[in-house]
Amino acid sequence: MRYDIAIIGTGPAGLEAAITAKVRNKNIILLGSKELSPKMAVVEHPIKNYLGLPEVTGKEMIAAFRKQLEVLDIEVTELKATTVYNVGDYYSLQLSNNDIIEADAVILATGVVAGKPYPGETEFLGRGVSYCATCDAPLYKGKTVAVIGGSKEEEAEADFLGEVCEKVYYFPLYKDEVNFKSTNIEICKEKPQEIKGGMKADTLVTDVKEHKVDCTFILRAAQFPAQLVPGLEVEGNAVKVDLQMRTNLPGLFTAGDLTGQPYQYIKAAGQGNVAALSAVSYLDEKKRG
Amino acid sequence: MRYDIAIIGTGPAGLEAAITAKVRNKNIILLGSKELSPKMAVVEHPIKNYLGLPEVTGKEMIAAFRKQLEVLDIEVTELKATTVYNVGDYYSLQLSNNDIIEADAVILATGVVAGKPYPGETEFLGRGVSYCATCDAPLYKGKTVAVIGGSKEEEAEADFLGEVCEKVYYFPLYKDEVNFKSTNIEICKEKPQEIKGGMKADTLVTDVKEHKVDCTFILRAAQFPAQLVPGLEVEGNAVKVDLQMRTNLPGLFTAGDLTGQPYQYIKAAGQGNVAALSAVSYLDEKKRG
Repeated sequence: MRYDIAIIGTGPAGLEAAITAKVRNKNIILLGSKELSPKMAVVEHPIKNYLGLPEVTGKEMIAAFRKQLEVLDIEVTELKATTVYNVGDYYSLQLSNNDIIEADAVILATGVVAGKPYPGETEFLGRGVSYCATCDAPLYKGKTVAVIGGSKEEEAEADFLGEVCEKVYYFPLYKDEVNFKSTNIEICKEKPQEIKGGMKADTLVTDVKEHKVDCTFILRAAQFPAQLVPGLEVEGNAVKVDLQMRTNLPGLFTAGDLTGQPYQYIKAAGQGNVAALSAVSYLDEKKRG
Repeated sequence: MRYDIAIIGTGPAGLEAAITAKVRNKNIILLGSKELSPKMAVVEHPIKNYLGLPEVTGKEMIAAFRKQLEVLDIEVTELKATTVYNVGDYYSLQLSNNDIIEADAVILATGVVAGKPYPGETEFLGRGVSYCATCDAPLYKGKTVAVIGGSKEEEAEADFLGEVCEKVYYFPLYKDEVNFKSTNIEICKEKPQEIKGGMKADTLVTDVKEHKVDCTFILRAAQFPAQLVPGLEVEGNAVKVDLQMRTNLPGLFTAGDLTGQPYQYIKAAGQGNVAALSAVSYLDEKKRG
């Protein structure tokens, strides 16, 4: 199944991109969370400067957005893309459930990611560094792996690795209590610092010691854009875009916090609209050949 | 009275700029129309892709915007700027009622203007070409002038010129019936084509003949951006901006249809937000010196 446009992210940028693409009759798939934006849901003070919605809480804003998705019959899938590959004149999205989606155009609206990749992370990606437990676990059957977990949701992934691998070191980046079914998972309260190796990565360095591992799985809630899309041009954690939300990759557009400051809901929505219309133009031109 | 920010335009871009600047405690003045956006008011089909306001008519959208202005206690003035001058480190706005407003920063959100200036218009501006009857009428007491009227609203201006000048040729660019109190106004159904002259403009050329006049008043509903702001860099009728809505003039920002396509409400609002926050940063930096 090839979609016209895959939209990644269900904050204001991704949602506006979805409604605009849908109004323009494109065959879209929207990847995100049924909660839409967990970050927005916790905003309890009134948001005063989203034109058209005076003085709403985050929950009220989400409710207004959700209503519009229903009116336009747009479904939110809870799929997660771990890597987006530019393959010739279309895109292939590797999902965390090991499926693959194809789309002629992609709109990235995954929000801003704090921090930066570990030294060695980008270099060894696919060679001892992985973002997807479900996809790559079979490669490490009976071996030793490390898992860096960005949030409690990643524990299920680590449990799955525990079933397949001989030994799993788990490094939680969060404060909550950690629980596993598998007994071969060792919880390490160390701070990951670097990934090292030769042809392949074979060592995770922490502030305490070096762990010899066959693979380090890095499971963040959101990916850095340059890691999510190999070849994408970035400046820091912001994707380089022009006024039409075009990136350096033809057919790949971005919108919202990913484009840099200011981090504002209405700015994100406005850029989502532009990204969708740019994607529509791109598809039209492609069809004309 | 010096304002922090003068915002010109009361479509979605100008309104979002106003609410964001107000939330950031800036001393603003908003120039536009109490109707907010006459263009939007006539949209009767449901607008489907403004995130947060599913399926609204133009009138309903305007009502939502108006409510937000009331909540934030923002006043719309019906003032019209005819020229915006960059004078050193602030801006001076010449108004059509002959008053002057000063502001440290300006946000232009006047919407797109179709067409282009007449040959000679820009060259002779201030020397036999004027955009403001009220301001410049006294210079042409007892003389002969031409008025190019973009809409029925300009007839009052022409009537005022009729009181002051010896003779007025009026060229309506619209189909409605034309009515004047002054009897020395001649309605000409010719098509203006060019403004000619030597040191000063002295001739309005139409598709029929040449009119010897001391001044040609060009009264459009909205001005071309490069004529409204001398020195502003444009490409066609779009103002050149970066992602932060900065123009080539420090302290002057723009948003909405003026920045080029797509012409979309939510895109305009998003850019208005960015323009306001860029203006706030500019003011903060200026204050720090």
